[in-house]
Amino acid sequence: MADQIYPIILCGGSGTRLWPASRESMPKQFTALVDARGSTFQATVERVTDASTFARPTVITAADARFIVAEQLAQVGVGADILLEPERRDSAAAVAVAALHAAARDPQAVVLILAADHVIEDAPAFAAAARAAAIGARAGQIMTLGIAPTKPATDYGYIRRGPALEGVPGAYAVARFVEKPNAEGAHDLIAEGALWNAGYFLFRADVMLAELRRHVPAVLDAAEAALEHATRDLDFVRLDAAAFGQAPKTSIDYAVMERTELAGVLPVSFAWSDVGTWDAVWGVLGRDAQGNAVRGRVELVETTNSLVHSEGEGLTTVVGLDDVVVVTTPDAVLVASKARSGQVKELVAQLRAAGHPEADAHRRMYRPWGWYQRIDLGERFQVKRIQVTPGGRLSLQKHFHRAEHWVVVRGTAEVTLDGAVSLVHENEAIYLPIGSMHRLANPGRIPLELIEVQVGSYTGEDDIVRTEDIYGR
Amino acid sequence: MADQIYPIILCGGSGTRLWPASRESMPKQFTALVDARGSTFQATVERVTDASTFARPTVITAADARFIVAEQLAQVGVGADILLEPERRDSAAAVAVAALHAAARDPQAVVLILAADHVIEDAPAFAAAARAAAIGARAGQIMTLGIAPTKPATDYGYIRRGPALEGVPGAYAVARFVEKPNAEGAHDLIAEGALWNAGYFLFRADVMLAELRRHVPAVLDAAEAALEHATRDLDFVRLDAAAFGQAPKTSIDYAVMERTELAGVLPVSFAWSDVGTWDAVWGVLGRDAQGNAVRGRVELVETTNSLVHSEGEGLTTVVGLDDVVVVTTPDAVLVASKARSGQVKELVAQLRAAGHPEADAHRRMYRPWGWYQRIDLGERFQVKRIQVTPGGRLSLQKHFHRAEHWVVVRGTAEVTLDGAVSLVHENEAIYLPIGSMHRLANPGRIPLELIEVQVGSYTGEDDIVRTEDIYGR
Repeated sequence: MADQIYPIILCGGSGTRLWPASRESMPKQFTALVDARGSTFQATVERVTDASTFARPTVITAADARFIVAEQLAQVGVGADILLEPERRDSAAAVAVAALHAAARDPQAVVLILAADHVIEDAPAFAAAARAAAIGARAGQIMTLGIAPTKPATDYGYIRRGPALEGVPGAYAVARFVEKPNAEGAHDLIAEGALWNAGYFLFRADVMLAELRRHVPAVLDAAEAALEHATRDLDFVRLDAAAFGQAPKTSIDYAVMERTELAGVLPVSFAWSDVGTWDAVWGVLGRDAQGNAVRGRVELVETTNSLVHSEGEGLTTVVGLDDVVVVTTPDAVLVASKARSGQVKELVAQLRAAGHPEADAHRRMYRPWGWYQRIDLGERFQVKRIQVTPGGRLSLQKHFHRAEHWVVVRGTAEVTLDGAVSLVHENEAIYLPIGSMHRLANPGRIPLELIEVQVGSYTGEDDIVRTEDIYGR
Repeated sequence: MADQIYPIILCGGSGTRLWPASRESMPKQFTALVDARGSTFQATVERVTDASTFARPTVITAADARFIVAEQLAQVGVGADILLEPERRDSAAAVAVAALHAAARDPQAVVLILAADHVIEDAPAFAAAARAAAIGARAGQIMTLGIAPTKPATDYGYIRRGPALEGVPGAYAVARFVEKPNAEGAHDLIAEGALWNAGYFLFRADVMLAELRRHVPAVLDAAEAALEHATRDLDFVRLDAAAFGQAPKTSIDYAVMERTELAGVLPVSFAWSDVGTWDAVWGVLGRDAQGNAVRGRVELVETTNSLVHSEGEGLTTVVGLDDVVVVTTPDAVLVASKARSGQVKELVAQLRAAGHPEADAHRRMYRPWGWYQRIDLGERFQVKRIQVTPGGRLSLQKHFHRAEHWVVVRGTAEVTLDGAVSLVHENEAIYLPIGSMHRLANPGRIPLELIEVQVGSYTGEDDIVRTEDIYGR
């Protein structure tokens, strides 16, 4: 329909403040951190599926996350355009790409920019707010949604309202965007009716493009070139790396919103959280009478107001503490003061500086064909559990320093070994000598699981020579 | 020599207050918790190896721990008699067995009872104290070592001194044993010169036996019968289970020390800790400028006065906390207020009540032939890493519900499969079908390591039929 809103979901973030559950290799927006039924990315997508309000969504994400995005979209049964950023260039470049992508369909398309990692339970209220703000967008304003503050937060920017916007019921001109205040400043801002800036923007594509041209032409030039030379890769549109890399790294807030004269704000009052810290995650989860939110295998003794999140098979216990966050994963554990959980960002920087691989990589590594997970490591061996989704097919490959033993524990494997193809069934094994050319695939209807025992003088991931790969790696 | 002291080391405890590092399946006295060079049991044994003071030691331990005791003794190169308790019957029964065992060698033998889980760095001071107290023991007293208190502890019993003991330099008669006091009581006790009761007793065997006969004859009867019907089992003396089970469960403190008129105490001032809680472990470990004691892969941000102990490969992190204990193991994590770490005992009781296997069993299970460790578990499979010490030999066995794949990753395996014996070398695998009769041994000079992949409808430990076992299981 002509008055549909074009939702564009930005999900390029790495969510390091929710380490160790969220890491570069699987950022928070793709995990079931706050809702076991699905990720916040999936909830965001589902929030914009009502065709009476929204057009087909577009997702802008990091190239590395493309198979996760595709799989999670398939799980919720939603089709979307997927644009791949070769690298992170901050939000101005992403919004420029979004505006150009929408303008290609309709120069006056009304675009809604959304983050993939927010929690908004009341989807109808959100859709109603989008429709109300779209009125301003159609009239040529660049609208934001201003969240009604629930506490004097110091980790959000604020929006001071100006006069009411003529012809846009409930909306105001923006008097000023205010950067993250201190506690006193937050208190004063709330007293005068300022709103939280949650990063939701609605605008006509042509209006945003004109403002980008005026305020940050280099960003727009880079975005235009990146789209012009983009390549289609399976179902993805891969932005041109050389061109996109020319975009200055700047936020849309700084580049346009703080400078434009067209900024408007629609106050909204639905419950919202950016679940940006473990403290915020605790805030949106259900809690027991002692104020504890627990997930997984957890036992507590005299513990209160805490978040205890146990991933995997391990047992996590807490004795005699108040206001703590405990997050355990198969390879890393975080224990933090809840009030200081924002400092997890510093921690991750410290982990990177110390060279800990757990800073960015998860134990379970997702691949287009499924995933693998290291389960044991010795001096001259490594053991992995590998799952291949039905139809999945690894690259044709060989290793110089390790032999591999595969034992199928579920499903059926199709194994190509030096040109010969054979089926390996549950409770059967096959041996792949050093230097042999081999390939693993799942020809069946259920997931294939196998245990891989690697034996050799070196078992690093980089001892791999790929010769064919259906995923274009 | 005639005036040697017979050390008898009691190591039957389970150390649940140091869970999850210490568990029933591997109690704290056998772990390298406080000193990476060895266990407190080994340090205790080494403390009594000076032949000018001590005779060959005797160890009294749980039957389940016998191979750990034997291996740890071999590691430090000390020979000892090893008496196995079929079950725990508290300390009076153990002391009765100790006195009888020593009396069999020399009715007037001077016995020193020691716990296996204490930290005493100053071995010469300890030996000197034992020699000084032995003077009183030879004169017919039942002597204790009274530790000079360093704080008003409420988790130890105290000893109030009476008049000086005639003929025993530095020693006093015991006025009274006082049970664990409250904080105020502890303060008063220390002010009047009372000492900590650390459970060290020195006595002539005949004197203790007479006191046991007088105060708790049922304990002595049970101990006598248990030794009379004991069986030799490899290098162990296994007390008769039926007889030992008749011993009333009571402590030597309650049964004898609080009633006898022969109690004497020698004040000692060497540094001592029973490392009974994580707080106490923190107290004996080296600490950095922030007061933190760390072990393993650990990173801290603005954390102070804490113990962070990471076992295994995992990374453990703490942000913004003071006075906490964090202990991570491959299958269980404890986070506790340091001041309340004594409540870990309650936690373990809670874990048992909830049926968590981690309450008592470690991931790595020690066996007479080496150890095994589960590294992965699925619906119809389980993966283990198995290490067999040189010369080790598992029982001849079969399973009804699972087949097994063994991949040797280090050393050489001798595999017996339905009567046929073959050698399986590093990077070779062998398949053991369901129902096959098989046996694994390490005929080599280095440890044998293999990955076992079990596949079947049931992979529990109890699906095993043993037909031959060199360890008499």
